[in-house]
Amino acid sequence: MSESKSTNVTWHDGDVCSDDRNRLLGQKGVTLWLTGLSGSGKSTIAVALETALMSKNKLCYRLDGDNVRLGINKNLGFSAEDRAENIRRIGEIAKLFCDASVITLASFISPYKSDREQVRQIHSDMGFEFVEIYVDCSLEEAEHRDPKGLYKKARAGEIKNFTGIDDPYEAPDRPEIHLITDAMSLDQEVQIIMDYLYENKLLY
Amino acid sequence: MSESKSTNVTWHDGDVCSDDRNRLLGQKGVTLWLTGLSGSGKSTIAVALETALMSKNKLCYRLDGDNVRLGINKNLGFSAEDRAENIRRIGEIAKLFCDASVITLASFISPYKSDREQVRQIHSDMGFEFVEIYVDCSLEEAEHRDPKGLYKKARAGEIKNFTGIDDPYEAPDRPEIHLITDAMSLDQEVQIIMDYLYENKLLY
Repeated sequence: MSESKSTNVTWHDGDVCSDDRNRLLGQKGVTLWLTGLSGSGKSTIAVALETALMSKNKLCYRLDGDNVRLGINKNLGFSAEDRAENIRRIGEIAKLFCDASVITLASFISPYKSDREQVRQIHSDMGFEFVEIYVDCSLEEAEHRDPKGLYKKARAGEIKNFTGIDDPYEAPDRPEIHLITDAMSLDQEVQIIMDYLYENKLLY
Repeated sequence: MSESKSTNVTWHDGDVCSDDRNRLLGQKGVTLWLTGLSGSGKSTIAVALETALMSKNKLCYRLDGDNVRLGINKNLGFSAEDRAENIRRIGEIAKLFCDASVITLASFISPYKSDREQVRQIHSDMGFEFVEIYVDCSLEEAEHRDPKGLYKKARAGEIKNFTGIDDPYEAPDRPEIHLITDAMSLDQEVQIIMDYLYENKLLY
């Protein structure tokens, strides 16, 4: 979409809006929110989904612990209040990315229903799409995988308030997409999400 | 860039990165940070610049008081500490947008050098480009314009800690771009920024 430089810049009146950006990109903003236990497969799915979307020439961006907890939310801890503020801020950032017409993949344990509902509300207040993806995995299986060794530490009492061990995970009642990662392959999971996006005109 | 749906989704190994997004969009992420007094013309320039960039098919996104103060930063007031946190969070968000390959226009009074330097640092730590644009306007002219009637209120003592009246504005020492809005037309200002972006290979 590169274009040669012109000496004179012209522009029309009026602000650039979401619709202009959607036309430019051939897509619209949507937040795909992956929630589930540590080790359930959220990040694996988000990474694979991002690549699948890129192969369709769609611009997406992944929000996760790596780029959020170490940056904008580095001044937050793990108290209930800070966890809620963590999710609220991520929801607000996802909303801005939606407004910028970017397909936003947010991958966070986000164990509390009320926090996730607040993020949904932030989106619906602005007319943006929010797709809750429940990355469902039995605690046994997640603990067996234990990719970061966190369950082991939690069981040993070295980590407190660990979701699934001594802190609750409140499963979504009516997620838009329900993936069961004990039983599905990564290919299947990505395909289910892509199908949902096309069928609901969130991707075209 | 729309493409028909395929039944089978395939993807290659490895994460999608900034370079992939840059190739997709034909642009790279950069933060254009407009700083200056209330009424100096920051937002007017940002809106015009956004339209000029869109006419070149470049994806950009504008961060300003409207979408930040009412959203992610709605739990911040105007104490020195909260002002610093306000700017820090905006800097972190701009960084994420840069990473997403979006040209980010941030238009905030941001009166303190140290806050702006922190935002520059946040960007340089990640290898992202930060362009400080000093929207310079005499206090007399800004107060004469007084588009929101805020100077009048500040002079009447109805608003405290108002930049330029009873709170300092620390002008940039070496901004990448210095616009003097008392003396330049909006067309000139936008052209200067566009020229800078092309000459420094930030736009191509």
